[in-house]
Amino acid sequence: MKKIGLIGGTGPESTLVYYKELNTRINNKLGGIGFPEIAIESLNLHKALDLVAKKEYDELTDYIGAKIQNLENGGADIIALTAATMHVVFDKLKPAVHKPFISIPVAAAEYAVKKGFKKVGLFGTIFTMEQDYLSGAFVANGIEVCTPCKEDRLIVHDHIANELEYGIVKEESLKELISIIQKMKEEQGIEALILGCTELPLALNDNNCPVPCLDIMEIHIQKLVELSTSA
Amino acid sequence: MKKIGLIGGTGPESTLVYYKELNTRINNKLGGIGFPEIAIESLNLHKALDLVAKKEYDELTDYIGAKIQNLENGGADIIALTAATMHVVFDKLKPAVHKPFISIPVAAAEYAVKKGFKKVGLFGTIFTMEQDYLSGAFVANGIEVCTPCKEDRLIVHDHIANELEYGIVKEESLKELISIIQKMKEEQGIEALILGCTELPLALNDNNCPVPCLDIMEIHIQKLVELSTSA
Repeated sequence: MKKIGLIGGTGPESTLVYYKELNTRINNKLGGIGFPEIAIESLNLHKALDLVAKKEYDELTDYIGAKIQNLENGGADIIALTAATMHVVFDKLKPAVHKPFISIPVAAAEYAVKKGFKKVGLFGTIFTMEQDYLSGAFVANGIEVCTPCKEDRLIVHDHIANELEYGIVKEESLKELISIIQKMKEEQGIEALILGCTELPLALNDNNCPVPCLDIMEIHIQKLVELSTSA
Repeated sequence: MKKIGLIGGTGPESTLVYYKELNTRINNKLGGIGFPEIAIESLNLHKALDLVAKKEYDELTDYIGAKIQNLENGGADIIALTAATMHVVFDKLKPAVHKPFISIPVAAAEYAVKKGFKKVGLFGTIFTMEQDYLSGAFVANGIEVCTPCKEDRLIVHDHIANELEYGIVKEESLKELISIIQKMKEEQGIEALILGCTELPLALNDNNCPVPCLDIMEIHIQKLVELSTSA
């Protein structure tokens, strides 16, 4: 079994999900006789988000890079970042990482390729929808990524920032999100939707969404389970 | 703010509590502007418990010691084990730890001294009640530690191993536990009860227990918050 090294804390809530799910799923997969070895370097969320906000990407790369170095020195066989946003510096970090470095966007894009999707929508914060750190991996895999129109992007962002981040799912907001997805399906022809923010699965899932959902954290965790337990 | 290094995974559920509580409490203490840096080395629970069961304490010391070394190399300023049972090798580990190494039993014993207790009871598994890895710190601090009689120890152990470990709290089992505590209060004069197992707070608390409860994990977490945020 390979040791998993995680950069966590950005934020702590999703780190808890990774830790709990990796332990439970790997132990179950091994018939209840083996929890994995996991090392977590949990960052100061405020410091990390501040560096993202100021676009101080060199400093962010140094901050995360030093922690990845700790994970490698401690014997981690697989490295991963537990937050989509931190992938804004994934390519800058990559040259210094000597172990398999498992990207959330790449794992999600490879999953979408397997599912045969050619054109997908992307929901997330304005930052996520307007930067290419998440969509880039899909494009590199030959998948077209559509975002909502400017006005709808603001609506999606607001529902995430002011409701979902606080665990609030309003019925009327959900309807609004679904109608934006429906419009993207009809006008842009999206075949699936990337849930590009950890909180979106609180509201959207395959049962209420007009197209299949790509839950990127779920896909990433599945990938880590598979890699940790493979020979 | 000092970086906290934790040996976790023994078991994963209490590691989740440590991680969540340290993040939340330290951030709240700092006015919502600073999550701590935390490093966790999460062990394979089955391997660790197997070494405890076989009393292979040298191997267990080596297993945990190597992970503590990783935490120190990664810049942890404070080291702690997140499970009482692993303190069976605390004294063997200590000489090789160069940072403050915060013991659960010592933190709990110091808390009991502050509260002025002279004689306390100890509940836990048979292993915990019959070994001195937990009681030793209290004795070293001048506090007498009483355990239930042999028959009652078996009852306490059974309720922990067969019910509480699975999150089950039966009303009749709780009554039985409380009557054992009441007997210890009357016959042995205990002034407080050490909840020497992570699951005991599921059943016992200051509202239903005949004497004040010493929740050792809670006391330990408070101590780590205090140390991490002190100058």
